[in-house]
Amino acid sequence: MAQEAQNREKFRQAVLNTLERHFFYKPSFKIYRGVAGFFDYGPPGCAVKANVLAFWRQHFILEENMLEVDCPCVTPEVVLKASGHVDKFTDLMVKDEKTGTCYRADHLIKDYCKHRLERDASLTAEKTAEFRHVIAALDDLSPEEIGAKIQEYGITAPDTNNPLSAPYPFNLMFQTSIGPSGLTPGYMRPETAQGIFVNFKDLYYHNGSKLPFAAAQIGQAFRNEISPRQGLLRVREFTLAEIEHFVDPEDKSHPKFSEVASLEFLMFPREDQVSGQSARRIVIGEAVAQGIVNNETLGYFIGRVYLFLTNLGIDKDRLRFRQHLANEMAHYAADCWDAEIESSYGWIECVGIADRSAYDLRAHMDKSGVPLVAHEKFAEPKEVEKLVITPIKKELGLAFKGKQKMVVEALEAMGEKEAMEMKAALESKGEVDFHVCTLEKDVTIRMNMLTISKEKKKEHQRVFTPSVIEPSFGIGRIIYCLYEHSFYTRPSRDGVEQLNVFRFPPLVAPIKCTVFPLVQNQQYEEVARRIAKSLKAAGILNTIDATGTSIGRRYARTDELGVPFAITVDSTTSVTIRERDSKKQIRVSIEEASSVVKAVTEGLSTWNDVLCKYPTHSS
Amino acid sequence: MAQEAQNREKFRQAVLNTLERHFFYKPSFKIYRGVAGFFDYGPPGCAVKANVLAFWRQHFILEENMLEVDCPCVTPEVVLKASGHVDKFTDLMVKDEKTGTCYRADHLIKDYCKHRLERDASLTAEKTAEFRHVIAALDDLSPEEIGAKIQEYGITAPDTNNPLSAPYPFNLMFQTSIGPSGLTPGYMRPETAQGIFVNFKDLYYHNGSKLPFAAAQIGQAFRNEISPRQGLLRVREFTLAEIEHFVDPEDKSHPKFSEVASLEFLMFPREDQVSGQSARRIVIGEAVAQGIVNNETLGYFIGRVYLFLTNLGIDKDRLRFRQHLANEMAHYAADCWDAEIESSYGWIECVGIADRSAYDLRAHMDKSGVPLVAHEKFAEPKEVEKLVITPIKKELGLAFKGKQKMVVEALEAMGEKEAMEMKAALESKGEVDFHVCTLEKDVTIRMNMLTISKEKKKEHQRVFTPSVIEPSFGIGRIIYCLYEHSFYTRPSRDGVEQLNVFRFPPLVAPIKCTVFPLVQNQQYEEVARRIAKSLKAAGILNTIDATGTSIGRRYARTDELGVPFAITVDSTTSVTIRERDSKKQIRVSIEEASSVVKAVTEGLSTWNDVLCKYPTHSS
Repeated sequence: MAQEAQNREKFRQAVLNTLERHFFYKPSFKIYRGVAGFFDYGPPGCAVKANVLAFWRQHFILEENMLEVDCPCVTPEVVLKASGHVDKFTDLMVKDEKTGTCYRADHLIKDYCKHRLERDASLTAEKTAEFRHVIAALDDLSPEEIGAKIQEYGITAPDTNNPLSAPYPFNLMFQTSIGPSGLTPGYMRPETAQGIFVNFKDLYYHNGSKLPFAAAQIGQAFRNEISPRQGLLRVREFTLAEIEHFVDPEDKSHPKFSEVASLEFLMFPREDQVSGQSARRIVIGEAVAQGIVNNETLGYFIGRVYLFLTNLGIDKDRLRFRQHLANEMAHYAADCWDAEIESSYGWIECVGIADRSAYDLRAHMDKSGVPLVAHEKFAEPKEVEKLVITPIKKELGLAFKGKQKMVVEALEAMGEKEAMEMKAALESKGEVDFHVCTLEKDVTIRMNMLTISKEKKKEHQRVFTPSVIEPSFGIGRIIYCLYEHSFYTRPSRDGVEQLNVFRFPPLVAPIKCTVFPLVQNQQYEEVARRIAKSLKAAGILNTIDATGTSIGRRYARTDELGVPFAITVDSTTSVTIRERDSKKQIRVSIEEASSVVKAVTEGLSTWNDVLCKYPTHSS
Repeated sequence: MAQEAQNREKFRQAVLNTLERHFFYKPSFKIYRGVAGFFDYGPPGCAVKANVLAFWRQHFILEENMLEVDCPCVTPEVVLKASGHVDKFTDLMVKDEKTGTCYRADHLIKDYCKHRLERDASLTAEKTAEFRHVIAALDDLSPEEIGAKIQEYGITAPDTNNPLSAPYPFNLMFQTSIGPSGLTPGYMRPETAQGIFVNFKDLYYHNGSKLPFAAAQIGQAFRNEISPRQGLLRVREFTLAEIEHFVDPEDKSHPKFSEVASLEFLMFPREDQVSGQSARRIVIGEAVAQGIVNNETLGYFIGRVYLFLTNLGIDKDRLRFRQHLANEMAHYAADCWDAEIESSYGWIECVGIADRSAYDLRAHMDKSGVPLVAHEKFAEPKEVEKLVITPIKKELGLAFKGKQKMVVEALEAMGEKEAMEMKAALESKGEVDFHVCTLEKDVTIRMNMLTISKEKKKEHQRVFTPSVIEPSFGIGRIIYCLYEHSFYTRPSRDGVEQLNVFRFPPLVAPIKCTVFPLVQNQQYEEVARRIAKSLKAAGILNTIDATGTSIGRRYARTDELGVPFAITVDSTTSVTIRERDSKKQIRVSIEEASSVVKAVTEGLSTWNDVLCKYPTHSS
């Protein structure tokens, strides 16, 4: 156990060192000693990110004709009040009572339990089970229960051993103020989704007032984490790519579901988690047919996410789709699955795929008063029975005076069943007790205070709030996991040192091809420039490395950057092309070099095809 | 004059209506009645923006092998303190003394002067000249002078006519707080450039410790404008694309200058502005040779910016490069030119191209204590004479006590000329008066307080702070001007109405091709789908419009979106291809359709080539 943890740590350090050395990324504001939770992407990191986002746009937006939007990060309070973020987007925090240093309460408990489990040899079976249970149930504990655990375990501030305050909620949004008056509070958006919801009406119109359709947004999101850790996995500013697919809640089928139905991958349904089993391979078509996944549209996106991640180079055996447990899921959600990727930090949630029902649109409709609804026109008008509740305001006014308004609202809000029961009760008994929530008490309703009836009406259309299925991608987390899954080491030729390699597929690689003049010589450099120019014209991103260092050193450097192909100019008529992972080389004419690299880079032919066609070269 | 203003207003309304109707963009948070200065890009707006940014990346980053970085928007105060933004990034504000409503002081004066100039027929020649001068000189006025003008003209609050407060500076950065303690103030970055400067050391290393090199960043920037107006031109959040090209201050030549040297375009040098002339066409090579533009690197970027903007579709006759007047330019800047584009709002600064000398790196070096310098290794060690100033601290301590430190610092900071003059004066007179800035007074320095000498040293390298040349692009402004330059109207076939067209080049167009089945019919729709699929495989973004509306209506709609080509399926063997601006049509076989569109979209052939090759079709 401890050995395994050590190996993971060692592996992670090797990855991080390589990433930082080549400026894939670095902590931000380093010359000012940095601020936790912020990172800068350098040149290769930017190229990888641009490649991942370009593929995302192609795989999702273009493939599905999604409607892309681009909304501001600065968001006025009213929007995030409606969405619930102002009131509920919090983590529990405790403070060192002497220094004021802040900690995330759940992290402290988790660390304590983990530490005891890993280091305390004298632990009883009972205690072991308890600590495991606490770690699993942390998200469900109330602030009071969290506080009680901290007391019970005698947890103190990690840096000082000082006592800790009681836990209290800390809102994770960065707050600011819009305009010069100081009267318009705003926040940096914690997700991009709200920008889509508030635009629903225009997007629906733009889509010809037809459902289903999906909107998408790529952009920055901000969370003022209490104590960021785990490097690129928990940061205070990050790029999200989010899709909101709006559907008729009565029809969540998907016309293209058959295209993904036969995909098989690791899934971890709720029941399997509860009964202590492991994730298992399930065909997504089966999962939907058996009701493990709630509906076809959700299943379709799970399949598409699987294809997206594995095409980027995520190892399919270290990727699973885990269903949210009942207590993890928001009360309004119909179903929710996380794409989790295994890294040296454990299983990391990288994509959330949730059926959020009509929650978000209803919340904004209630707050703004603007109808965010869809219409289904009937081919022929339909006759429907509608409940009609008519309060007699004069009588109600006499009986309830200043409280009349609240009683009327409560009466009008009755559902059909409740109203028909009241009607029956009034007809038999003449009066009935009725609970008014806003008054927090029962009042007596008499027969002369309202009429309840059912009327037949002709309707030409159905008006409803669409459900939304939301796949939400943490781009930075995906990229970090990709780095780990792509990294390996192999001995140098002389066996003296371990060399680092990123096995990025060409789709992701920051540079597709390097060109090396074997020795510093004008003729070779001229050939190298010709080939580089021809590669560029073909759209293949490349660099020339004409430094005098040994070809072995230069290969090692290009492997560390994950460049899939290297062309070495060792004559004025032909060159060699080396593939990064096999280290095999072929010899081709100068004229063919760029077209061969283009073909293997764009997947028009495979390296094996090329190996058969051209003479191999052994260095 | 008034007629012209009316025409401009009418033109602008036609453009804006078309843009909003197709959701190129809309005011943000509309269902909550919006917040000034924020806009959402909808589907076609996002596509245009993505196309502009992709071309920017290709034209600048890839073409010049620039080092791209991606830094956070949230920035700790220390960084923006060093850059000067915390202290100086302000606009002058006045408040309505009764309602508290805020206004930009300069805007009120400008509006007043403009109004008088346009509407006051009785204006004397003298007053006319005065108002024109005030508008031109507004940026140079001190807060007191601005306040005096408001008094003198009797300007009151526009909405209420209430009296106004005296002007005071309002910082334009959105402020926030990083982390839970509330002790780390931060701001949303007002530009992306600082992220590059604080990374200089790592970028220089990444570039093999060689100059020159350029770094680039694309990202969001934020300015809490006092009263945003002019739609997309003055917003509170926007996308910037910035380049910082680092050079040896002693060598600002550019190896690729010859590639742009013969370009000729509208330039507006400082002298011409001062002497009241107009912008004139100048060959950039001449401008550099004559010293109108300070150096080759600056000239190179001016040329590249010209190519960038005109390739996007900016009208070259409504684009000029205006040099900053001496009083507009920061004191440290060597030279500065703005690419200004003429729109219905007047000439708009869209790209700034400044030689900022070593200012930014020095500022961060001073604040952080980290050397942000470059090294030039000499082929052979050079013997140099170096000034050596050695304060005798004992004597200085006796003379100045607690103020010794400030005197020592001032002595050590002397330049060579000043020091040698002091040495001569001390040798002849024995003492000398010396001004110490930090003490704000003169002190008397005596011979025994320091030694001044020149020593010969062997140096192996030169250490210096690089100069930086900064082209900075306001992407939203460029896109808005592009909309105006691309928009025109033409009569419908029956002459009854005016139809709107955006003449976007294929590079920019949100969709490259639409496919229309002429009538709703399964065979035609099948052909349309085949062609669409083949276009998609060729990487040509397209949509099918199979609505039953007339082909004329569908052409009008596709013209309004600026789609360059439309394929109409009117048989099962051949189709027509229509070009948007000429409205000419050719007939090609179904098999050829996608390759013809690909060729003209990607510039491999022109529409005229195609017109010659294929039979024309008249509808």
